[in-house]
Amino acid sequence: MKQVEVGIIMGSSSDAPIMRQAIEVLKKFDIAYEFNVVSAHRTPQKMFDYAATAEERGLKVIIAGAGGAAHLPGMVAAITTLPVVGVPIKSSNSLDGWDSLLSIVQMPADIPVATVGVNGARNAGLLAVQILGTSNPELRKKLAALKQENNEKVAKQNETLDQFE
Amino acid sequence: MKQVEVGIIMGSSSDAPIMRQAIEVLKKFDIAYEFNVVSAHRTPQKMFDYAATAEERGLKVIIAGAGGAAHLPGMVAAITTLPVVGVPIKSSNSLDGWDSLLSIVQMPADIPVATVGVNGARNAGLLAVQILGTSNPELRKKLAALKQENNEKVAKQNETLDQFE
Amino acid sequence: MKQVEVGIIMGSSSDAPIMRQAIEVLKKFDIAYEFNVVSAHRTPQKMFDYAATAEERGLKVIIAGAGGAAHLPGMVAAITTLPVVGVPIKSSNSLDGWDSLLSIVQMPADIPVATVGVNGARNAGLLAVQILGTSNPELRKKLAALKQENNEKVAKQNETLDQFE
Amino acid sequence: MKQVEVGIIMGSSSDAPIMRQAIEVLKKFDIAYEFNVVSAHRTPQKMFDYAATAEERGLKVIIAGAGGAAHLPGMVAAITTLPVVGVPIKSSNSLDGWDSLLSIVQMPADIPVATVGVNGARNAGLLAVQILGTSNPELRKKLAALKQENNEKVAKQNETLDQFE
Amino acid sequence: MKQVEVGIIMGSSSDAPIMRQAIEVLKKFDIAYEFNVVSAHRTPQKMFDYAATAEERGLKVIIAGAGGAAHLPGMVAAITTLPVVGVPIKSSNSLDGWDSLLSIVQMPADIPVATVGVNGARNAGLLAVQILGTSNPELRKKLAALKQENNEKVAKQNETLDQFE
Amino acid sequence: MKQVEVGIIMGSSSDAPIMRQAIEVLKKFDIAYEFNVVSAHRTPQKMFDYAATAEERGLKVIIAGAGGAAHLPGMVAAITTLPVVGVPIKSSNSLDGWDSLLSIVQMPADIPVATVGVNGARNAGLLAVQILGTSNPELRKKLAALKQENNEKVAKQNETLDQFE
Amino acid sequence: MKQVEVGIIMGSSSDAPIMRQAIEVLKKFDIAYEFNVVSAHRTPQKMFDYAATAEERGLKVIIAGAGGAAHLPGMVAAITTLPVVGVPIKSSNSLDGWDSLLSIVQMPADIPVATVGVNGARNAGLLAVQILGTSNPELRKKLAALKQENNEKVAKQNETLDQFE
Amino acid sequence: MKQVEVGIIMGSSSDAPIMRQAIEVLKKFDIAYEFNVVSAHRTPQKMFDYAATAEERGLKVIIAGAGGAAHLPGMVAAITTLPVVGVPIKSSNSLDGWDSLLSIVQMPADIPVATVGVNGARNAGLLAVQILGTSNPELRKKLAALKQENNEKVAKQNETLDQFE
Repeated sequence: MKQVEVGIIMGSSSDAPIMRQAIEVLKKFDIAYEFNVVSAHRTPQKMFDYAATAEERGLKVIIAGAGGAAHLPGMVAAITTLPVVGVPIKSSNSLDGWDSLLSIVQMPADIPVATVGVNGARNAGLLAVQILGTSNPELRKKLAALKQENNEKVAKQNETLDQFE
Repeated sequence: MKQVEVGIIMGSSSDAPIMRQAIEVLKKFDIAYEFNVVSAHRTPQKMFDYAATAEERGLKVIIAGAGGAAHLPGMVAAITTLPVVGVPIKSSNSLDGWDSLLSIVQMPADIPVATVGVNGARNAGLLAVQILGTSNPELRKKLAALKQENNEKVAKQNETLDQFE
Repeated sequence: MKQVEVGIIMGSSSDAPIMRQAIEVLKKFDIAYEFNVVSAHRTPQKMFDYAATAEERGLKVIIAGAGGAAHLPGMVAAITTLPVVGVPIKSSNSLDGWDSLLSIVQMPADIPVATVGVNGARNAGLLAVQILGTSNPELRKKLAALKQENNEKVAKQNETLDQFE
Repeated sequence: MKQVEVGIIMGSSSDAPIMRQAIEVLKKFDIAYEFNVVSAHRTPQKMFDYAATAEERGLKVIIAGAGGAAHLPGMVAAITTLPVVGVPIKSSNSLDGWDSLLSIVQMPADIPVATVGVNGARNAGLLAVQILGTSNPELRKKLAALKQENNEKVAKQNETLDQFE
Repeated sequence: MKQVEVGIIMGSSSDAPIMRQAIEVLKKFDIAYEFNVVSAHRTPQKMFDYAATAEERGLKVIIAGAGGAAHLPGMVAAITTLPVVGVPIKSSNSLDGWDSLLSIVQMPADIPVATVGVNGARNAGLLAVQILGTSNPELRKKLAALKQENNEKVAKQNETLDQFE
Repeated sequence: MKQVEVGIIMGSSSDAPIMRQAIEVLKKFDIAYEFNVVSAHRTPQKMFDYAATAEERGLKVIIAGAGGAAHLPGMVAAITTLPVVGVPIKSSNSLDGWDSLLSIVQMPADIPVATVGVNGARNAGLLAVQILGTSNPELRKKLAALKQENNEKVAKQNETLDQFE
Repeated sequence: MKQVEVGIIMGSSSDAPIMRQAIEVLKKFDIAYEFNVVSAHRTPQKMFDYAATAEERGLKVIIAGAGGAAHLPGMVAAITTLPVVGVPIKSSNSLDGWDSLLSIVQMPADIPVATVGVNGARNAGLLAVQILGTSNPELRKKLAALKQENNEKVAKQNETLDQFE
Repeated sequence: MKQVEVGIIMGSSSDAPIMRQAIEVLKKFDIAYEFNVVSAHRTPQKMFDYAATAEERGLKVIIAGAGGAAHLPGMVAAITTLPVVGVPIKSSNSLDGWDSLLSIVQMPADIPVATVGVNGARNAGLLAVQILGTSNPELRKKLAALKQENNEKVAKQNETLDQFE
């Protein structure tokens, strides 16, 4: 069994449909992950323990998604020395995602959160891959291949693009 | 020595000039307080302990000020059952206070933070007095007297208002 | 019959579906409440009288919800010495709740409103319980039990969380 | 002595430097006015009485300026049937005037406030003149003359405009 | 036939569903009006003529609604000396009404537009009535009656409000 | 004497320090221009005439700057068929330029304004050159040279960049 | 076969429904165009080549639409000397178009993008026509005719406007 | 000589005072870096080459700062497979940093930028260290030591905090 390298957490199971997009990416790159609800507000001790033991459990990157006054990514980053990728969720109780975005990205000095766009869990997954890729040339090759795929998709879109004439 | 009933905390000593406005109010109402830097991000364990022991140490209300991605009030509220009053600080690294405000007020279900206006530490102090006043008629009388004072100040402002004629 | 301790008011009966979430909380904590439409704009005298007599009628906390240019919480706070919890409502005539939020939270010195998140009536109810809990250890125990319940709900969510494998 | 037709009020004497710009206009048009601090929050009863007696005292228009959670114009409009002109003030405790603007303009059905731009007290004065002008052809002539004056000022600006050549 | 006193204009016929709310009010108060599409951008000359002849045609107030970069109210106000009431429309091509609101309310010195809330055509109609009421005590009585009606509606809402018990 | 091809107008002479940046560009490219205060609100007829005669006077492009509820660029675009470049000015009475930007860019269908960034008069001048360049290869060569110049400036900045070691 | 004068590009084929509105305009004015997906992010080299060869391929104007962190219009403008018209798209992953608008309009000195309103592809098409019209009197006549058409449409809307009586 | 592992780039030398804060961090952690002005808009080819060769030159992480319509971080991320950390700069031509933030964070699928707060170059440096730390236990130890330092600073701040008594 592979060592789990990426921990994906979210403040509520209602964030799962968005956060699964990170899983899709990790599976594509064959990276072992774990996926859990860890709430800074409802399970603060669990959040604490999760962050405090992440490094010794072998995690390399943590992806944390949350909505509204989204404290999970920043609190985890306060406790661990691992890079934390934050995903602002446009949840039903949020102000269209503005609150989630600002609560995650505007961290004080010395406690960075690597923030991606609103609902950008797919990009969070890719950022985790890029981070792991800094010591893994194989992953970098796969990342280059994905760029090539995307490039080709555009070419295909153009072939079928109705010129409206 | 009086029992300390209000704990005033802030994420950084740079917030002190604003947060002292809460102290002024508590002194005026003769309420014992304590005043500390407790950072959710730089001292997460201390924050945890502070919140977890607040009730047993006799605190009744916690006032927490923070700027930017302001997680202190919400994290304290996650841990204690005491009412937490949140003060959004317009700090130098904040987006004019919008980030502080949204990070504090937009809390998820079951973890309220009683939020006051940006830099509104004076009002946070008064809210703490009002909360203590729910079981202390003497404080309510003093609060009524403050309303009367403010009322009279307006009358005085009018006496000296230049009618520009 | 129990003494009514919490007055819940709202600017319009169209706010009732949101504001009932505060009632649910109070019922769960077995706190007597009253529930009324009191409009700062359509019934200013009634609003005045409601706020002016709240303390003598035995109320301890007032929860006020309003949308758009939401003046009800602030005006009630101008008249009573009781703590007022304000709930910004994202009503149909509001700018996605931004107007409601700013109209409630940005109160001037000496007239605090304890503001919760947009549509956060459930949290307003809990804040009222926390305030009453400052002089009622029984309520604090129940609040701690609610935290425990929420904690356990997260554990259950994790048990059933599809790991997507 | 002329009948006072316009009442100018403001939430605090700190708003006077802005609000005097309305007085300048009224003086230019030779309209009698009164100028007072009337605070919705610090002097609610006075605000009530002011609004309730405005019509019987002969006022035709009320100009009300306020900052932050600016409730004065809307509350006065709730009580009187006279047109109320609202001036959002960018006060030191406001979020750059956004809170003042939204708190004044986003009034609910049946309680209009005629809102002008942020710090737009001069325009509030002119709007009062235009309103009085609906039954006073003399004022309308003077308003037309002001338009002509402004038109000519632009011509003069052009005469002296450095063509940068 | 009654003299038309209020001109209601809008930038596009797609604004009609909102702007009709102003007509409802004027009909209730038995005030003669005219209702037209006048576009600052598509019919600039017509807009010009409309504004320039409004006073001589006997109009007393102009209500102008527009969305997006909403120039109609301000341009009409630039040309006529009559009071212009501006209605920001949340049209399909607008940024949720923010553009409409700012384009209408933030007028430069000497060209006021009496701005109401987003989609607030009903309030625009009432503001027109209030303005006409400054020289018409009968209208002021009817306005007072409307306030009374609204007051009673709240009382009725309370009678039928489910206390949730 | 060269045919004037670019008309630069602004709502107030206070906008001149910003708008002169467009002149600098036009002089550098040796394009004849005219520079005037033309206010949509204070000189609506002059604005009308300016726009209506622009084409016959030989203008090819109009650059219009304005602040607050900035109607000048859009109104000119409503009248002329020439391309109009709009410059949102962050004037003292504006909401940090947000109002100017939205009032200029959010134009309705069929009346485009080519909007540049807040205070972006230099870019407005360059856009005018690019537009003239569509039928003038000489100008396109000069534009390419400017790109080269800017490219070399970056190289020079790097030569003198303190590496902080 | 006519020389293609306008290149329409977009970051993704999902932007096509909006961008086709530019095509409709160009077809109406009988201007030859090309229509392609060119992504700054997924096909950076292609974007580079497209922009670098645009002038030599005979293009006169480029219309570029993009959503979210919309870099396409600005990057193309960095490379070509042709005028670039930017269309901010309110795509599913954007913050209601605010991000698209700011990413396109707020360009640095010397790299203008002629920005139109959110989803304003029709206006982008017209702006391209106006730009080509600076050297083509025939197009200017057609643009004047379109203005006349729009003017008449308003007249027709008024004929059928229900006066609600 | 140590292998350069972090490339710090910025759109303009005027961003240097902010971006140097990243250098301070890298020096403290003894990580070799390079520091350059690379402008997406003024030196697009250089930007292209920089990004395309970054991996082969041995870089592991790129930190890119830019203001206004900030395209540098996203364009570099489009070309390289290395993780790119984006720093939104509140430059003089930006809308208080909102434009910079949204232009950097709201990237489309598959092209993540690890965004830090406005002017957060110090955090960008730390994020780079954390990323390098995923394959370097020594760096993780130093990061833990920094957390300890910050923790102790708070303790010291408390020792000297004036209790205001």
